[in-house]
Amino acid sequence: MKGAILSIEPNANLVDLSHAVPPQDIVSGAYLLWTSVEVFPPGTVHVAVVDPGVGSPRLAVAIRCARGDIFVGPDNGLLLPAINRLGGIQRAVELNRPEFWRRGTSSTFHGRDVFGPVAAHLARGVALEELGSPVSDPIQLAFAKPEGHRGEVIHVDTYGNLVTNLPASDLPAQFRVRLGALAIPFVGYYAAVRPGELLAVVGSAGLLEISARDASAAALTNASRGTPVLIEPS
Amino acid sequence: MKGAILSIEPNANLVDLSHAVPPQDIVSGAYLLWTSVEVFPPGTVHVAVVDPGVGSPRLAVAIRCARGDIFVGPDNGLLLPAINRLGGIQRAVELNRPEFWRRGTSSTFHGRDVFGPVAAHLARGVALEELGSPVSDPIQLAFAKPEGHRGEVIHVDTYGNLVTNLPASDLPAQFRVRLGALAIPFVGYYAAVRPGELLAVVGSAGLLEISARDASAAALTNASRGTPVLIEPS
Amino acid sequence: MKGAILSIEPNANLVDLSHAVPPQDIVSGAYLLWTSVEVFPPGTVHVAVVDPGVGSPRLAVAIRCARGDIFVGPDNGLLLPAINRLGGIQRAVELNRPEFWRRGTSSTFHGRDVFGPVAAHLARGVALEELGSPVSDPIQLAFAKPEGHRGEVIHVDTYGNLVTNLPASDLPAQFRVRLGALAIPFVGYYAAVRPGELLAVVGSAGLLEISARDASAAALTNASRGTPVLIEPS
Repeated sequence: MKGAILSIEPNANLVDLSHAVPPQDIVSGAYLLWTSVEVFPPGTVHVAVVDPGVGSPRLAVAIRCARGDIFVGPDNGLLLPAINRLGGIQRAVELNRPEFWRRGTSSTFHGRDVFGPVAAHLARGVALEELGSPVSDPIQLAFAKPEGHRGEVIHVDTYGNLVTNLPASDLPAQFRVRLGALAIPFVGYYAAVRPGELLAVVGSAGLLEISARDASAAALTNASRGTPVLIEPS
Repeated sequence: MKGAILSIEPNANLVDLSHAVPPQDIVSGAYLLWTSVEVFPPGTVHVAVVDPGVGSPRLAVAIRCARGDIFVGPDNGLLLPAINRLGGIQRAVELNRPEFWRRGTSSTFHGRDVFGPVAAHLARGVALEELGSPVSDPIQLAFAKPEGHRGEVIHVDTYGNLVTNLPASDLPAQFRVRLGALAIPFVGYYAAVRPGELLAVVGSAGLLEISARDASAAALTNASRGTPVLIEPS
Repeated sequence: MKGAILSIEPNANLVDLSHAVPPQDIVSGAYLLWTSVEVFPPGTVHVAVVDPGVGSPRLAVAIRCARGDIFVGPDNGLLLPAINRLGGIQRAVELNRPEFWRRGTSSTFHGRDVFGPVAAHLARGVALEELGSPVSDPIQLAFAKPEGHRGEVIHVDTYGNLVTNLPASDLPAQFRVRLGALAIPFVGYYAAVRPGELLAVVGSAGLLEISARDASAAALTNASRGTPVLIEPS
């Protein structure tokens, strides 16, 4: 995919976001994209390909968001949380102009054959509108919403931190966190507890996270995406 | 290795091809290089180092292929499938001019000490011929060839897809694929079967691959490199 | 973190040193940094973040070494072996000027919020002295020292090679290596023994290493950091 991009735009500055999205895990890819895009320069072209439907009739899309960034990838929800974070859809097209693709498109690797080349053309200045026909309703994907103080794990990172959907802005003044039978203290930083102990902290995405100091909270708790997490004011 | 390159050619645009070659697995490295080089811009300098013989009397080589790309690495076959794909050897030299290497060459890390520096000099415009003496017969490596409709697995990728040596161009109009006792349907794309089911598909290298939808075919079948795969016309 | 850097300095040339530092393993990170920095161009800005104390009162620092490189990271010893290798501390500051950080600093991800932005400002030409107040005594970290011919494993790399603290310059003319009950031959390169056999060799850091040809010495010996290694002259 990088070769395909550099063959079209040799000056592209390529940045890998992660090498750790589990195969075919659209929600995990969507989370990583959502949590990362804000810090990139406005106008960045983001290519994201977690694409279990590759080769099938699923659409391929390029979407410009309100901030000016353009997202390129499969129409399976992967891109939408990030786009919504940057102000929502400003214009979306279905990628259906093969003259902007690699010749000899495969049915298994559209990163190399479609998304990479399209992103390279965008980086060279080709207008979004040239790449295909307008689409009005890309497939949405939303992370589970908390109900008051009842939330859940929405992402497990490579350290075993459990990211919940409970935003820092909704936390009470004093509380502890319940995960199954465990009562977990809310602290200011990892080193506030002893090595190996569980803690809750506001993570870098502005969400409550459950971690373990110098250890993996996922391994210690067996929690995974969807595991309920409760706020218990004290 | 990247530091060694950038110290000589600060404008080098470095692209990692993969972080997933199993240690010392020359055939796996050769496959990844072979499957990737075509899409890079002609004239690219490719450095590849899967090098169990590092420090021994094995040769180090730089080879220009017919398309103009230059390959740098150990003389153990690793580079040859890719070179043959790009038109074959146009000129090959043994790397034996230490003035183009890092001073204080180790016997365990020629990526940093020999291959990286040589690649950087090539990227700066040093001629291949300056780097060493001509060699006429680099060690060849070829993937196993199919016999008609009898092929085998030649690569297992990080998703657990089983890449065979059966080219798409030799497939009959209608067929199924046999792997041990398993009869596997040939389909147009992954999503044509149900989650967890095995399928065969033409992969991005133009070869027949056995995959599992949203799962690992390698894990489901216990197949590995060398496992026979048969085409059964129907 | 890369997005944060590129938002401030779009021309930064970002190089990943490793994706394989075990979580929170400061000594492992310090070793990888120590072993790699010499080959980078003088004046490089090195950002290193193995940071179990993130968010706590631990200091964040930027340190210029005698060679001119600048190191940015937590004040936990991580940076010091590398700095000492490049001539020692020339000037050190505590990072306490939030105007050079990302707005809305988290307590869990200072790579993105503090270290990356500070490194980007340094790459743009901001003087070290502008970033904070002088500090005179950053936390030191030193690898275990050998006692004559008695050393130990100080690092296990991704191949399973056991790097010891025994420098090549102190090795006798003829010797073998003892690791527990094992007597291991010292050879010139990996391929000097048979596949699967253990060997000792001078590695790319100039230290004695114990390896296994085409296999993992760590897996074969169960050795890990701290395991004693003895030189037995013969």
